Amino acid sequence: MAARALDDLIALLAKLPGLGPRSARRAALHLIKQRETLLRRLAVALSEAADQVQKCSTCGNLDAADPCWICADAERADRQICVVEDVDDLWALERSGLFRGRYHVLGGTLSPIDGYGPQDLGIDRLLARVAAGTVDEVILATSATVDGQTTAHYIADRLGATGVAVTRLAHGLPVGGELDYLDEGTLAQALRARRPVA
Amino acid sequence: MAARALDDLIALLAKLPGLGPRSARRAALHLIKQRETLLRRLAVALSEAADQVQKCSTCGNLDAADPCWICADAERADRQICVVEDVDDLWALERSGLFRGRYHVLGGTLSPIDGYGPQDLGIDRLLARVAAGTVDEVILATSATVDGQTTAHYIADRLGATGVAVTRLAHGLPVGGELDYLDEGTLAQALRARRPVA
Repeated sequence: MAARALDDLIALLAKLPGLGPRSARRAALHLIKQRETLLRRLAVALSEAADQVQKCSTCGNLDAADPCWICADAERADRQICVVEDVDDLWALERSGLFRGRYHVLGGTLSPIDGYGPQDLGIDRLLARVAAGTVDEVILATSATVDGQTTAHYIADRLGATGVAVTRLAHGLPVGGELDYLDEGTLAQALRARRPVA
Repeated sequence: MAARALDDLIALLAKLPGLGPRSARRAALHLIKQRETLLRRLAVALSEAADQVQKCSTCGNLDAADPCWICADAERADRQICVVEDVDDLWALERSGLFRGRYHVLGGTLSPIDGYGPQDLGIDRLLARVAAGTVDEVILATSATVDGQTTAHYIADRLGATGVAVTRLAHGLPVGGELDYLDEGTLAQALRARRPVA
């Protein structure tokens, strides 16, 4: 039904994470109503992203340039590499402004079921960067999920022989977290990693 | 930060209903990962929609053709016009397959606050279609919201002089609705419009 162009648009929008068939229809209508201010601009932005955005061959970050803006930044510390699962994790860390080293973006986690192995995560590329000798700490900032932690353990194992310091993010209470809303796993981690009051 | 092309894309995606800044970032990453299968196809679909999709000058439906596929369909009944707020309501009715007449798409509801008046809803166009003489029923299928019902009352008033039958959708229990979860307004409507058991 309706214009084929509209059906196609709705079907593609429905493939975006966070949009289903219903919200894709709403989004399509919203776009048509803002033809010049949103629809055409989004079409151009998508084309430009498709043409320009590429993976950094060093760290796996997404940028128009290769090496990416982080790898190319001479101000950042070469001695720290922060390993993240995906580019949105890198973005989250960059928004915090707390880390001024380099990154390694895995692009996923180890997942034997999905056939996602070490070669897909660029582990050899990471080892080569560490072997180059300028790195003295690798921070494993994978998610606190089973897959994330399995991947972190695997990378820590592989890095063991290099002699580089391998650390991971602390687990515990999130800021503002109430004790009786926390899951037992987090509570256990927070208790085990308790620190003396300064 | 990151590629300007990516930032632009995220900012535009965040303007879609149902997506916020966070889900826009996820959507952008998802698109980049499926560059050929989704990103480029979506760019093309958006351009085509921008070029081809237009408002039907008769009913306000969206289609590549004017008159639209519904107005052009000789099989449909000319004597019934169903008035809906927007094209997604028309789509919902068409999915049900229950209505085989014509439509009038208002493109919104009367809203003095937003400066949205009768001229914006194409009421004169609707009156002209009714005055043409082939119509004998106008079904008001606006939403059961204050704005939707206000708009329906206004249209019913305007149609009063034409002598055409004006009906509205029944209000009551939705199928599968449990009584104790219903709001009082719906319960009151359902009780008032109760019908003899056949």
